[in-house]
Amino acid sequence: MPAEAMVEIAPATASMALARALSDAAAAVEQALDALLPRPEGPEARLFESMRYSALGGGKRMRAFLVLESARQFGVARQAALRVAAAIEMIHAYSLVHDDLPAMDNDALRRGKPTNHIAFDEATAILAGDALQCHAFTVLSEEETHPDPAVRIELVRAISRAAGPRGMCGGQMLDMLAERAAAPLDEAAIGRLQLLKTGKLIEVSAEAGAILGKAAPSQRHALAAYGRDVGAAFQIADDILDATASAEEAGKATGKDAGAGKATLVGLLGVDRARLQAERLIAQAKAHLDGFGERADLLRALADFTIARRH
Amino acid sequence: MPAEAMVEIAPATASMALARALSDAAAAVEQALDALLPRPEGPEARLFESMRYSALGGGKRMRAFLVLESARQFGVARQAALRVAAAIEMIHAYSLVHDDLPAMDNDALRRGKPTNHIAFDEATAILAGDALQCHAFTVLSEEETHPDPAVRIELVRAISRAAGPRGMCGGQMLDMLAERAAAPLDEAAIGRLQLLKTGKLIEVSAEAGAILGKAAPSQRHALAAYGRDVGAAFQIADDILDATASAEEAGKATGKDAGAGKATLVGLLGVDRARLQAERLIAQAKAHLDGFGERADLLRALADFTIARRH
Repeated sequence: MPAEAMVEIAPATASMALARALSDAAAAVEQALDALLPRPEGPEARLFESMRYSALGGGKRMRAFLVLESARQFGVARQAALRVAAAIEMIHAYSLVHDDLPAMDNDALRRGKPTNHIAFDEATAILAGDALQCHAFTVLSEEETHPDPAVRIELVRAISRAAGPRGMCGGQMLDMLAERAAAPLDEAAIGRLQLLKTGKLIEVSAEAGAILGKAAPSQRHALAAYGRDVGAAFQIADDILDATASAEEAGKATGKDAGAGKATLVGLLGVDRARLQAERLIAQAKAHLDGFGERADLLRALADFTIARRH
Repeated sequence: MPAEAMVEIAPATASMALARALSDAAAAVEQALDALLPRPEGPEARLFESMRYSALGGGKRMRAFLVLESARQFGVARQAALRVAAAIEMIHAYSLVHDDLPAMDNDALRRGKPTNHIAFDEATAILAGDALQCHAFTVLSEEETHPDPAVRIELVRAISRAAGPRGMCGGQMLDMLAERAAAPLDEAAIGRLQLLKTGKLIEVSAEAGAILGKAAPSQRHALAAYGRDVGAAFQIADDILDATASAEEAGKATGKDAGAGKATLVGLLGVDRARLQAERLIAQAKAHLDGFGERADLLRALADFTIARRH
């Protein structure tokens, strides 16, 4: 492919439309989460508060945006897509609560506020994570998510696979093992780690709209492939930011990966080659959308934004 | 009801049939779990080993037995019922792995072997629990569980509710709060704690066969009510054993509850009144099976066994 295609800058209008769509999606999923999570009432209110503390009020909501935009390709009702988006954000939130625990990454801050086990306590944080994961499957299973039970069960199947032992949990295990390993991981092993740890849930977010919309298998596969490539590029861009941006630009502590001996492609290939690979992935992600019309422009803009962002 | 009914001893034949059925169910669900859990291969094998360590090789498998026996009332294929039984046992196993963690009950032994975080490490135990819960929903969602997607999604809905914030996780939160509370819980609060913490998952185990068998709502409700009463009686019997049996008889450390200041009905009412209440619950559990024929005799025998057992 021509080099120009890779460095093409999205027109200002596209990035403005994307910025608005991202912020609309974040506001809408926030509202959906608020409605779907248990009210903090009754004797076990502390659990519900802890769940809400970590699921509400934060993050880019990229997974939610992918669900909403992929669902929009097929005219899916926004209320249904929002339930699926909220369920996936609950799973993402639970994974962060557990990753931050003292026995895992031992982080005290997340998105500028104390992590769950600091704000509550370790036992409550473990339980809140468990309950968030479980509640995501309750939300998916309820009739309001889609009138057709075959659609709902396919969502449970695809999302549980992406989050389970052969998906996110497996990737987290690989990440922990990599930190303890004597020799650094090679490129293939790092790619696999990141595909499992963060890629699969991003992939299934883009796929979820096709499931909700009962799309043709070719369209479902195209969206899944798009999500996989965007997810991989997003991870590289994150690692590049960590390696190059100042903490002020990134809005969080940077240079952490090298310090922690984290297995990243940037550490292995260097910033320039890693950036080229991210650009290649983004071109490939957009190519998967070739069969989609203008309606997919926001998905294309998100792909471009993934590697252009500075935070 | 006449006092005789409450102290009736199951005939030797019934208890022998029950003993055989319990051991057959345990062996069958063990095999199903072995087949359904990821093989311990590949770079993330440690996670799969940790999942298998806690899900395989142990426990009474009472929940599995309830699934199999309730499914048998409606002629459900045993292979399908075994998948549901295995999924519920995965959820039960994950809850024990997380309950045993240092931040929770900090137990080093479970069923005579080191707890998961001792045998592996804390981070792996947290992840293995997360993955076991998630994998249970994958198993339920797969077509082999039932050809009708409406049945599969109803299983996901009922089981995720029983295990989630308004079920098992909520009960665990109440249990933790009770240990920290200044004043002891009253009878209603203890009942609610135990209904959520262990009752709901036992209830849904008895209900699952009715869901699989597309039973009439009245039959489904009857089995759920049976499960709820058996679960409550089981908990009281467990607490009585803890308070009265020698460690040798019980096969585990006893007298732990009083030492830990655990909220139990036995502690509140004393052994005799607690035993009467368990007997009343068992009579009530069996009454819920009045509409079922001889086929439900093993469920009746299990109810009797629940309060007759010595370990």
